[in-house]
Amino acid sequence: MKKLIGSPGTLSGLLLRIGQCLFAAASIAAMASAFGFSNYTSFCYLIASMGLQVLWSSGLAFLDVYAIKIKRDLHNPVLVSLFVVGDWVTATLSLAAACSSAGVAVLYTKDMGFCKSLPHHPCSRFQISIALGFITWFLIFISSLVTFWLLASA
Amino acid sequence: MKKLIGSPGTLSGLLLRIGQCLFAAASIAAMASAFGFSNYTSFCYLIASMGLQVLWSSGLAFLDVYAIKIKRDLHNPVLVSLFVVGDWVTATLSLAAACSSAGVAVLYTKDMGFCKSLPHHPCSRFQISIALGFITWFLIFISSLVTFWLLASA
Repeated sequence: MKKLIGSPGTLSGLLLRIGQCLFAAASIAAMASAFGFSNYTSFCYLIASMGLQVLWSSGLAFLDVYAIKIKRDLHNPVLVSLFVVGDWVTATLSLAAACSSAGVAVLYTKDMGFCKSLPHHPCSRFQISIALGFITWFLIFISSLVTFWLLASA
Repeated sequence: MKKLIGSPGTLSGLLLRIGQCLFAAASIAAMASAFGFSNYTSFCYLIASMGLQVLWSSGLAFLDVYAIKIKRDLHNPVLVSLFVVGDWVTATLSLAAACSSAGVAVLYTKDMGFCKSLPHHPCSRFQISIALGFITWFLIFISSLVTFWLLASA
């Protein structure tokens, strides 16, 4: 297997995983600090999905650190298949959560105009959390493309 | 390049494309027949995204028919790269549209209980359209995985 930028066991791969963890955790923090988020199924789903992302990405970040430290090659087909499945599942769930929350946010901001008429509504926190969710998805999407490419070109 | 099930220029690939067109068109029809869908940005976006999907998949379906008829091989790297980009873009847009619409539908059905309290609200049509959107996404997702695999293993 070739070594690509962002592949498991490399420094760029580790940085990608750390980025995923940080943005997902920031998304959870922004959403959890918004009053009344728990009334919306989509926002709860965003928290759940970002929580899963933190678990998955931090696990792989620890694995990357271990592989870099003892200079072990993680590029064997079984491990990479596992990474591909996990990356794809979490990437799809993250995109789905960010989009469903964005759908609700757009409904409130644009279609109903709640954010203007109800100034106490925590619209901006919801929007920040959703934006961070999309950044998380973008980072995990890069990781999943790299691992899938590694598996396919093996 | 190897020939995989669902790859461009094969009968299974053609069937996948036809399925994408049919489900996307059915999703548009179900949404357009629901009264008041145009008040919701997410539902308009679903129609736009499914419209793009119909255009892309029907174009590739015609190309598949042509390739099967004159027995031409579509597996050259430039063509496959083009398929990969188009498939990924339309797949991501379809999932985003289906999820954002699902977010709004869940908000109305579960969080607010509008579907029970307002019997004239066309909830079921929205839900059918969204379900068809998810099936369309699943079919284009298969196509995009196959084309990406072809490109990576070339």
